[in-house]
Amino acid sequence: MAKKPMNIALIGCQFMGKAHSNAYRQAPRFFDLPVDPVMKVVCGITKEEAEGAAAKYGWQETSGDWEEVVNRPDIDIVDIATPNNTHAMIAIAAAKAGKHILCEKPLSTNMRDAKAMMDAVEKAGVKNAVSFCYRRAPAATLAKQLIEEGKIGQIYHFRGQYLQDWIVDPKFPLVWRLQKEVAGSGAHGDLAAHTIDFARYLVGEIADVTGVMETFIKQRPKLAKSDDRLGGVASEEMGEVTVDDASMFLVRFANGALGTIESSRFCLGRKNYNRWEINGSKGSIVFNVERMDELEVYFHDDPPNLRGFRTIQVTDSCHPYTGNYWPAAHIIGYEHTFINQAKDFLEAIANDKPYSPDFRDGVRNQAVLEAVEKSSETGAWVKPEAI
Amino acid sequence: MAKKPMNIALIGCQFMGKAHSNAYRQAPRFFDLPVDPVMKVVCGITKEEAEGAAAKYGWQETSGDWEEVVNRPDIDIVDIATPNNTHAMIAIAAAKAGKHILCEKPLSTNMRDAKAMMDAVEKAGVKNAVSFCYRRAPAATLAKQLIEEGKIGQIYHFRGQYLQDWIVDPKFPLVWRLQKEVAGSGAHGDLAAHTIDFARYLVGEIADVTGVMETFIKQRPKLAKSDDRLGGVASEEMGEVTVDDASMFLVRFANGALGTIESSRFCLGRKNYNRWEINGSKGSIVFNVERMDELEVYFHDDPPNLRGFRTIQVTDSCHPYTGNYWPAAHIIGYEHTFINQAKDFLEAIANDKPYSPDFRDGVRNQAVLEAVEKSSETGAWVKPEAI
Amino acid sequence: MAKKPMNIALIGCQFMGKAHSNAYRQAPRFFDLPVDPVMKVVCGITKEEAEGAAAKYGWQETSGDWEEVVNRPDIDIVDIATPNNTHAMIAIAAAKAGKHILCEKPLSTNMRDAKAMMDAVEKAGVKNAVSFCYRRAPAATLAKQLIEEGKIGQIYHFRGQYLQDWIVDPKFPLVWRLQKEVAGSGAHGDLAAHTIDFARYLVGEIADVTGVMETFIKQRPKLAKSDDRLGGVASEEMGEVTVDDASMFLVRFANGALGTIESSRFCLGRKNYNRWEINGSKGSIVFNVERMDELEVYFHDDPPNLRGFRTIQVTDSCHPYTGNYWPAAHIIGYEHTFINQAKDFLEAIANDKPYSPDFRDGVRNQAVLEAVEKSSETGAWVKPEAI
Amino acid sequence: MAKKPMNIALIGCQFMGKAHSNAYRQAPRFFDLPVDPVMKVVCGITKEEAEGAAAKYGWQETSGDWEEVVNRPDIDIVDIATPNNTHAMIAIAAAKAGKHILCEKPLSTNMRDAKAMMDAVEKAGVKNAVSFCYRRAPAATLAKQLIEEGKIGQIYHFRGQYLQDWIVDPKFPLVWRLQKEVAGSGAHGDLAAHTIDFARYLVGEIADVTGVMETFIKQRPKLAKSDDRLGGVASEEMGEVTVDDASMFLVRFANGALGTIESSRFCLGRKNYNRWEINGSKGSIVFNVERMDELEVYFHDDPPNLRGFRTIQVTDSCHPYTGNYWPAAHIIGYEHTFINQAKDFLEAIANDKPYSPDFRDGVRNQAVLEAVEKSSETGAWVKPEAI
Repeated sequence: MAKKPMNIALIGCQFMGKAHSNAYRQAPRFFDLPVDPVMKVVCGITKEEAEGAAAKYGWQETSGDWEEVVNRPDIDIVDIATPNNTHAMIAIAAAKAGKHILCEKPLSTNMRDAKAMMDAVEKAGVKNAVSFCYRRAPAATLAKQLIEEGKIGQIYHFRGQYLQDWIVDPKFPLVWRLQKEVAGSGAHGDLAAHTIDFARYLVGEIADVTGVMETFIKQRPKLAKSDDRLGGVASEEMGEVTVDDASMFLVRFANGALGTIESSRFCLGRKNYNRWEINGSKGSIVFNVERMDELEVYFHDDPPNLRGFRTIQVTDSCHPYTGNYWPAAHIIGYEHTFINQAKDFLEAIANDKPYSPDFRDGVRNQAVLEAVEKSSETGAWVKPEAI
Repeated sequence: MAKKPMNIALIGCQFMGKAHSNAYRQAPRFFDLPVDPVMKVVCGITKEEAEGAAAKYGWQETSGDWEEVVNRPDIDIVDIATPNNTHAMIAIAAAKAGKHILCEKPLSTNMRDAKAMMDAVEKAGVKNAVSFCYRRAPAATLAKQLIEEGKIGQIYHFRGQYLQDWIVDPKFPLVWRLQKEVAGSGAHGDLAAHTIDFARYLVGEIADVTGVMETFIKQRPKLAKSDDRLGGVASEEMGEVTVDDASMFLVRFANGALGTIESSRFCLGRKNYNRWEINGSKGSIVFNVERMDELEVYFHDDPPNLRGFRTIQVTDSCHPYTGNYWPAAHIIGYEHTFINQAKDFLEAIANDKPYSPDFRDGVRNQAVLEAVEKSSETGAWVKPEAI
Repeated sequence: MAKKPMNIALIGCQFMGKAHSNAYRQAPRFFDLPVDPVMKVVCGITKEEAEGAAAKYGWQETSGDWEEVVNRPDIDIVDIATPNNTHAMIAIAAAKAGKHILCEKPLSTNMRDAKAMMDAVEKAGVKNAVSFCYRRAPAATLAKQLIEEGKIGQIYHFRGQYLQDWIVDPKFPLVWRLQKEVAGSGAHGDLAAHTIDFARYLVGEIADVTGVMETFIKQRPKLAKSDDRLGGVASEEMGEVTVDDASMFLVRFANGALGTIESSRFCLGRKNYNRWEINGSKGSIVFNVERMDELEVYFHDDPPNLRGFRTIQVTDSCHPYTGNYWPAAHIIGYEHTFINQAKDFLEAIANDKPYSPDFRDGVRNQAVLEAVEKSSETGAWVKPEAI
Repeated sequence: MAKKPMNIALIGCQFMGKAHSNAYRQAPRFFDLPVDPVMKVVCGITKEEAEGAAAKYGWQETSGDWEEVVNRPDIDIVDIATPNNTHAMIAIAAAKAGKHILCEKPLSTNMRDAKAMMDAVEKAGVKNAVSFCYRRAPAATLAKQLIEEGKIGQIYHFRGQYLQDWIVDPKFPLVWRLQKEVAGSGAHGDLAAHTIDFARYLVGEIADVTGVMETFIKQRPKLAKSDDRLGGVASEEMGEVTVDDASMFLVRFANGALGTIESSRFCLGRKNYNRWEINGSKGSIVFNVERMDELEVYFHDDPPNLRGFRTIQVTDSCHPYTGNYWPAAHIIGYEHTFINQAKDFLEAIANDKPYSPDFRDGVRNQAVLEAVEKSSETGAWVKPEAI
């Protein structure tokens, strides 16, 4: 029996558009989905851009007009993979049109917009997801299971860093990710947002923060031409960097745990070092996206002379998601976190089940980001706005 | 301008069929190929099996008759992903029909068949490839580049192990991989074949071997039902294990280097531990498929106080293949070695360029496998048959 | 020709007394010292305690009266390895008596005492050292060399943690290290003090801090009997824990670098995890005392396709200190940091050369510790007192 | 009550003499020994050499005449740390004089001498030890415990390598370790001997071997002057290298396990890479001297989703030996294996208990070494002489 088709519209054709396209193309090849995702239409800034993406990534139709797209009656899901400052208008319009929505992170560039987005989807009663894809790395999902089963005990410490090095060179150009009006913030919203999501997912709500945001290189050559990775060609003219290069903050969780979170694009050798460590009363866990197929776990309940961090290859049929891919230790990669996310979101829609992280999570995440921004200005501890 | 379509027929629907299907589906999404690969027809043992695979993996047509398929005039490429003992008949028929052929490893279960396959493709003048996919892990390709650039110097040692643990349990059933008439050999042909390919690729031809093949568990429950990974359901009846559980051998290379090679399915904790280390007069290299995005390299030319093994994340745009996937350290996985292989094979066909490893490599590999088998019987050193 | 003898008095017989005794016994066996260190007298709380230590560790004489000892005319060096709250009175008396002094860290339990100690030694003109022994792990010394040679460039980030797990069990007794009046602080003064020393040594002076100190377990069984490691036997009666179990703080360095520092005794699996990472404009360095014979370094100047963290085994004759011990990779351990320290301090005395870290470093360290304590109370950023 | 003194004579003042001296000096400082080891006399090739060593390492008396020394009535223990070809004559004389003997490995340069040594000590009824010190790295001792407790199950594989890189440079001079008449063999007797000892200790007796010994660099500059590490100053004249640079061999154990053993001084980056891995029916263990404070262990009995190699820091009070040194993860090093050995040997003498490895172990080890040598000449499998 043929499955019910579910028509998807993708808004945005760059790096994230590529990753999301791959997810919809691949999810039904590995998982037995309850619906048939149809890559219906991709929308670019221009129709030409969309046509390139459609040919490359396999979308049926193209558009240069997102408003028209999100209002098409045949569209079930709107996937938003555009620069951060455009998320709100697209999501709100899509919600009004009754579409389910998956939106890239951070949800928006500011709290006001983020809350408007949340209100819109909740009012519309549509499924909504924010793309903190790393939650769905199998090792991270396993970590969550261990914590929920009580195997780590009461959590004392969360220690998260998300470190990259792609803008250490002062000649690296002023791409949109370095402009406040488009990106909202720099490393903070791009990287720390992921770490905050992990912190909330694994430890609980954040009660209080104090932090610093810093821009090491204040001026850079303006961008002449972007590429489909993260960089582009520099021009001769200089422009102002208006976002942070790095952020660091201390966290008090509502449940009493302590946290340190750090994000930076200035850590040479750290390419996609999205790492956290959790220490509890019964054990510790370590995860690092650079070796995302592995989870390190320490159990105090092991016999004293045999205690040690064990490195679990989270690739076996008994682990989350991985049974649908390849045999043990035939590793999967970055793109599979999006495939897992697409699968779970499609299932949530088909079965009308809750999906997490949703826009409310996105807003709470944004509230933490903004609390750190405020703290960075005042030097004081700031409580994230309660949502 | 539309690219020239190239019609592919896949014979075989299990684990390898899944990996090869994925490769053809994904290659054009990441690489700008000179042709347009068309997933034309998949062939199973039965048409039903093929229909399941077609729906799952995205093939246009199905068949239960491989002979009919390899003789279809619209087929350009025959991809053989069947059990080892069927490779020869399919490949020889496909060669006679003038098809380009990609065949899973090991090429065959015996030298006679393997040579017949080589003769057939060379006589037919068709492109031919044997699927030692790990050569095309970006880190392995980088290793080859370093050796060719002379950065490692004269090679003294090759130390290769391919270790797994999926049959340690004596109750694991007698799947086809444990039956000599189907598989040819056990760990030896399945795993050591990969290591031999790496040894030949990176160091050179093997002149002499002495070795041992061993079966630790001589009887196992017969198979009631297989699954699409490596296992299945055991029945109550016992059967004879007719292949090796492990092999180990010493190697003298033609160029004077020494080698040790070991394969086993009895190494608990080693899931897909396809690891080798090369020591030369100027440096050392280490690769392990379990962390396939990394390469460890040591250079004697570094300043004495700063010498150390460096762990390169082979994921950057300056590395082989990876520029077409994701940003640095957004890792790729097992399936991408097949995508890279598909891309290179399609390019070799389109541009009429040599492809390596070809069937001749497959035969030379087989010659080493058989020399070890003979040595295991006689206890003497054996020179692999010259091809 | 016999070397000039230099008579040493050790005050304190526990864990640190054992480590310092070993250092004096071993230094002349590995290094060609300019003087002959004589293990003259050891002083305990009681003469009996001292007698045990003398027999065990090889001291010529014993005493239960530190005042008498530090005033003995034949003593050249006073080594203070007592609980923190006794450092000041002993050091000041020793300085007045004109002795050179090596004092365990932290220098004292409060700034007032620490400054009085500094004033006393500077007024007396005696050599003075505070035992931040980890600076003299060969790998840490190599790190310092690399930074001074400019190989790491401008430093952007310092990320230090000193994590242990020995008091996670709520039944662990109330040893002196958990009592404020003796220890001054908990993890903060015991562990973060080391990290602060590394930060100052490798990056520079600390301009501003904000931080938190926390006690997870507020009450513990009182101590019935201590042992010579870190623990002891619990009694039935409960007592108040008056020091922190963990501290975490953000740092702004005078030179613009950012830092995060964390100390805890509640990190299961982290036994002596004294780790830091430095990211600069030209490279990164990582050190961890748990693998103290290794240093990880990343150089951006390496060819792009060969960049990676290299693990240097800092054990060769070209490395600091190690040429005097054993051949390469015949590793040394914790105790050797004290041997290296003893050697350098004896040389500084014999050659009348500066020694670092001295009491002034100890006071600056204390100033940072106290700034964090204040910040933990007020929630504001605090500038360490300028010294 | 004073302990009974036990007078030790050390024959040999180079690298091993330094390590043995340190062991006797330090053992009573960390362990509560049943006797009081007295560093009575050190004997060099000349009395001058001995005087240097006595001053440096702390021996009471000196001698240039080993025969006189081993016959002194006040000597209880003779410790032999001379080049390999002198072990036999010294040990036999010492045995005749009724001394307990600790002899460096390999026991001798040939089987005839080794057996004569064994016969001599067994006839004399003196305690005898061969210095395979690495058995007494705490992590290796823990591995032995785990195997004896059945935690690893039936052993299938032993995979041992001892790799170094100190003679890769063709200009490295012809030290005594490269001369057959003095050293007996090269990497084989120096390094593989240790691996064979581990194999016998952990797995069992070796039934059959086939192997290769190879000399990559046939000629080297003669030695002008040695140093106290492993090297020296090269002269202008060239000489023949008469030992192997590397050996590799396959092993069949009496209990059915398979083994591969490799030794080399030509593996750049491997400094003291004395590593082995054991795979059994219930688990796996990995040890590497370069990180000798750690043991990696994998248990199949762990829950399936939590299986992984755990890295145990074998430094806690519950681990062998380490409780007598420092707190957890305050690591020890190479020299402590000798201290542990000295402690155990002194206890065996004092308590008249068996000591292992003894000379009989040394002879069995030699039998394996020689079987490989024969196999390397004939190409056939060779059974080690039964002892």
